[in-house]
Amino acid sequence: MTLEFEHGTLTLKAGGRVLFNHHETRPCCFVGIGTAIVKTRKGHADLRDDLDEKIALRAARLQRRNGRECIDFSMSADGPVVLSVEIVPVETGVHLRIQSHDARINRLWWRVPAEADEYVWGCGEQFSYFNLRGRHFPLWTSEPGVGRDKSTHITWQAEIAGGGGGDYYKTYYPQPTFVSSHRYALHAQTTAYADFDFRRAEYHELHFWGVPEQLEFTLADDFATLVERLSTRFGRQPRLPEWLHQGAVLGLKNGRRHADHVLALALEHGVQVSALWCEDWAGVRKTSFGTRLFWDWRWNEERYPDHARWVQALRGAGIRFMGYANPYLCEDGQLFREARELGYLVRDRSGAAQLVDFGEFMCASVDFTNPAAARWFSERILVREMLDQGHDGWMADFGEYLPVDAQLASGADPMLAHNAFPSQWAEVNAHAVASAGKTGEVVFFMRSGYTGVQAHCPMLWAGDQSVDFSRHDGLQTVICAALSAGLVGNAYHHSDIGGYTSLFGNTRTPEVFQRWAEMAAFTPMMRTHEGNRPEQNFQFYQDVDVLRHLARMTRLHVALSPYVRELVEEAAQRGLPLQRPLFLHYADDRSTYDIQDQYLYGESLLVAPVHTVDVRSWHPYLPAGAQWVHLWSGEVFAGGMRVEVRAELGEPPVFVLQGSRWQDYLLSLPASIDR
Amino acid sequence: MTLEFEHGTLTLKAGGRVLFNHHETRPCCFVGIGTAIVKTRKGHADLRDDLDEKIALRAARLQRRNGRECIDFSMSADGPVVLSVEIVPVETGVHLRIQSHDARINRLWWRVPAEADEYVWGCGEQFSYFNLRGRHFPLWTSEPGVGRDKSTHITWQAEIAGGGGGDYYKTYYPQPTFVSSHRYALHAQTTAYADFDFRRAEYHELHFWGVPEQLEFTLADDFATLVERLSTRFGRQPRLPEWLHQGAVLGLKNGRRHADHVLALALEHGVQVSALWCEDWAGVRKTSFGTRLFWDWRWNEERYPDHARWVQALRGAGIRFMGYANPYLCEDGQLFREARELGYLVRDRSGAAQLVDFGEFMCASVDFTNPAAARWFSERILVREMLDQGHDGWMADFGEYLPVDAQLASGADPMLAHNAFPSQWAEVNAHAVASAGKTGEVVFFMRSGYTGVQAHCPMLWAGDQSVDFSRHDGLQTVICAALSAGLVGNAYHHSDIGGYTSLFGNTRTPEVFQRWAEMAAFTPMMRTHEGNRPEQNFQFYQDVDVLRHLARMTRLHVALSPYVRELVEEAAQRGLPLQRPLFLHYADDRSTYDIQDQYLYGESLLVAPVHTVDVRSWHPYLPAGAQWVHLWSGEVFAGGMRVEVRAELGEPPVFVLQGSRWQDYLLSLPASIDR
Repeated sequence: MTLEFEHGTLTLKAGGRVLFNHHETRPCCFVGIGTAIVKTRKGHADLRDDLDEKIALRAARLQRRNGRECIDFSMSADGPVVLSVEIVPVETGVHLRIQSHDARINRLWWRVPAEADEYVWGCGEQFSYFNLRGRHFPLWTSEPGVGRDKSTHITWQAEIAGGGGGDYYKTYYPQPTFVSSHRYALHAQTTAYADFDFRRAEYHELHFWGVPEQLEFTLADDFATLVERLSTRFGRQPRLPEWLHQGAVLGLKNGRRHADHVLALALEHGVQVSALWCEDWAGVRKTSFGTRLFWDWRWNEERYPDHARWVQALRGAGIRFMGYANPYLCEDGQLFREARELGYLVRDRSGAAQLVDFGEFMCASVDFTNPAAARWFSERILVREMLDQGHDGWMADFGEYLPVDAQLASGADPMLAHNAFPSQWAEVNAHAVASAGKTGEVVFFMRSGYTGVQAHCPMLWAGDQSVDFSRHDGLQTVICAALSAGLVGNAYHHSDIGGYTSLFGNTRTPEVFQRWAEMAAFTPMMRTHEGNRPEQNFQFYQDVDVLRHLARMTRLHVALSPYVRELVEEAAQRGLPLQRPLFLHYADDRSTYDIQDQYLYGESLLVAPVHTVDVRSWHPYLPAGAQWVHLWSGEVFAGGMRVEVRAELGEPPVFVLQGSRWQDYLLSLPASIDR
Repeated sequence: MTLEFEHGTLTLKAGGRVLFNHHETRPCCFVGIGTAIVKTRKGHADLRDDLDEKIALRAARLQRRNGRECIDFSMSADGPVVLSVEIVPVETGVHLRIQSHDARINRLWWRVPAEADEYVWGCGEQFSYFNLRGRHFPLWTSEPGVGRDKSTHITWQAEIAGGGGGDYYKTYYPQPTFVSSHRYALHAQTTAYADFDFRRAEYHELHFWGVPEQLEFTLADDFATLVERLSTRFGRQPRLPEWLHQGAVLGLKNGRRHADHVLALALEHGVQVSALWCEDWAGVRKTSFGTRLFWDWRWNEERYPDHARWVQALRGAGIRFMGYANPYLCEDGQLFREARELGYLVRDRSGAAQLVDFGEFMCASVDFTNPAAARWFSERILVREMLDQGHDGWMADFGEYLPVDAQLASGADPMLAHNAFPSQWAEVNAHAVASAGKTGEVVFFMRSGYTGVQAHCPMLWAGDQSVDFSRHDGLQTVICAALSAGLVGNAYHHSDIGGYTSLFGNTRTPEVFQRWAEMAAFTPMMRTHEGNRPEQNFQFYQDVDVLRHLARMTRLHVALSPYVRELVEEAAQRGLPLQRPLFLHYADDRSTYDIQDQYLYGESLLVAPVHTVDVRSWHPYLPAGAQWVHLWSGEVFAGGMRVEVRAELGEPPVFVLQGSRWQDYLLSLPASIDR
């Protein structure tokens, strides 16, 4: 690593990469003063900056302090130092530690040298674009919206209905971290609202509503090592439990009788089942919108009579039980009263519990910035009401809604606490599991996230897709989500089979369910969901053909488990995600850099899920430098081009790496599952 | 007027108003450097600023130069002077002459002191909001869009169809001039893109993509005098010709046979006709979109055989002829070839004529920044082809489309030339009329505008509304347009009866036509239009009841002409618009400040057009401090409240000022028109 100051240009280089470049006519750093204007409704945020000043810091003076290189920035050579950047070499790269000397500064722009042909990925879990170049990405945890594409009628209807149609960059899980094709990653240590702008040919502009503590450059010679280092930096997930690979998790939400019935039907048709996931374990309420869950996290005896014995019986049959929780407690529940009495709820400006309207019922969030409240949620709810009563996992929902006018126990500025909340929510869950001694055995899954969620959340799920093949809210978006989240250290990702959101007459077809199940077989958790409107949408248990198709895909999923166990081990050891972008192992083939609807499932499998309606063939791209064996036909293809393969229902386009240790085993699967 | 510098605060006051207020902690002026990113398609512009710097000029030093007060602004007390503002008292107020001392500066923000209860109006011709407070208004001449309301399906469809759905601030005629309820007007002398932001309680922020020459404060004790002064500043229109008051202008576009037929039908049913307006006089072309006009501005013999004799015959019957022109010439026309040979067309960056695709035909605009080209258009086209051949007026269409990558003869920056173009186009038309000695006799009407259009354009028309009652693109928007344009010096305004734009299955009903005609009777030009899709929309000549209703409204229009002549004289003498906001004469009644769907037609009439479907009563607000006589019933109402009146078709809610000189005459009209 070298820091040069020549002809007025200050340059930080590392292994041929220019990480930093400053000249008074091309300053790398700008500071400003602004006021955030934030409008929020139901988890959808509209953020606008009322910007007073944006000032270029043109003058840079190189200093040595505490044995380290330090750059003092000011507006002009004779002006006061506004910002200091300390250059801290670390084993994996270099950190730029930033210190502001003007308390009024609450905006920062940092320009990172770029090249026109550079690719950039990451920024947390992105649903629309894997390659981030050419667009800017506001980073603020929120609902992603329904449709997420201003050109579709559904998006417009969602917008009008007040629910929010969303946009390409909206995500439950943003993270100010990107990976460059120049083999470096840049992470900004901050929870402030940020906007990473990759539209310019010559630089990336990183904008923050606050001054980040530091910018961390991580370097590596290859992408896999880079991802490994990011995983080490952000935290590694525990190994997945063996039981999760033993079949699909069936998502149901209509009481015990319904659960028993669907389970029997599924087993009868040969569906491999690892767990029942009953969202409605704590009960439901009727609203004019429909049936909603009752947000008081205790077993509902009416809906699930004799639940202890039932869960035990399920377990005896090799089937686990999973439930549901979120950070909210409903006003008419017992836990709300307990939390309010203890002073554990997020408060509004008047000091009262901040009630949030979720549609005819009011809730308050537990204030996880209060360590006692966080502990209470872990121990009183997650341990006592759930783990102690038979839960082997749950959906840990929400985390994106912390209002920016909240009053928090820690005194934190809610504009900074908002993005931090998902990771705190993850930690509350992880703490419960750990305190019960069940880390690596119990699996909770989350949709919200931010820097640090990696250390606590064992499994992401992609949230609420539309029940369709739409470009920005359908099946293919969860591939993009898995790949981008995977690059920044999330090894495990999965989604609702068949999607979730059915609005405005858009309902799930058997085909959407089946194509989704084909993909889900090649993810670490295969889980169905009845969707937001179960009665109006197709369910797998309504059709024998679909049941049989699902059964076959679950057999494939289970049959893959020896291979997946190895991937899980690799994830535990190296932090490599199970679902990987093609370039992770084929960096020399730049054609792979823009592919976001295919993935490597470990090094030996390439999965190219069908994501359009009514097709019976598919044209995947196979990376150059290898040969690929089509899983179903055994046909061998040379990499470096698109190929055509049959893609009947039940035969998702999947390829085995020629020459892999796993080749024979994987190619034997088609025969083994057709019994 | 006083300029004070006390306790570090610099304040410019005039008659109790604070025009200017600066302190280093609350600077009034900010400068910046940015790069405009402009995407344009079919007259719809998407402008974004890539802003590098925005710097507060905190230090102000008061100087005296050339006998005038002058303020030197800099970033800090010891920094170089960045901007100087010379304070130039003028008879009607004060001008702040701005000079930048840094050539890189191309952005300016200026904060004008405001109060929370202040109202603001103007900014050219605004269609959605008359009171501008609470919103910001980008000022850039453009297509206004179809629907103009993100919550309507039509807007969304227009957006998707690539035509542009528009938004509340989009207008053909923006102008950086506003009128404050504090009895002052502020005009910025510039043609740069601007954004006037009235969202803040404490100040208005005026933003410019360039440094304006000056900010002009005009003061007056009452609103009427203020408007008079603005009219003097921007230019006054000639008196309207007597012939225009003698009936409606019938808009037709299907050749002579159709014109003859409709005219006969209209006359037969008692419609008073002042002129035939035949858009298609120069011919048409067929495209897949439909029939379009042929943009080669010469009589088309096929469509209008023996036109000279025909026009003469019409004139003999007291009916004038009006045509159509715009700044474009179609590539396959004769005038295009002439203009290209002369080098009079706007060029692209390669130096070739800049062709614009209008949908299966290509056109180029004449370059009015070249005085010879402007003269050529006036004399070769408007005089020789139109005035000399029987035209007594025309629609002077377009003016909003000048591309920002154009190469202009004057060498002007197209970012500055874009907003200037409408006024140049107006001048070309006015020059033709003047050179034929027909000013005040010939009437051309325009939709595009900018500062200065007042001096050249004798009549505005409101452009292309949707054929409906919609809030942001229907009937009521033309009232808002007339009021806002009127405040900044445009005395004459009118619109297409029944609207123009019929898309996505939205078609004109007889009711929309009739309600619109009722309003049009109370405007200086009553003109029909067949719309963009004549065959699919209701036309007045298709229904005897509507013909009779129209006939009655034209009789009312003609019967009003003695009164209107007096208003025309008032406009010529004082520059007061015919259609006036209620507060112009009732400033003490603040309830009138927000009313944008009613107007005073001169001082003696209050018009409250019906603008919703299927109602038979209406609830107008009548200003306090006067009594009002309902035109149709003679019932007298006290002002200061909303009243209920019948509003049958044919009886638009209109009130006569009790005690007006015109009272008896106006109240006699209902009887006189029902013959």
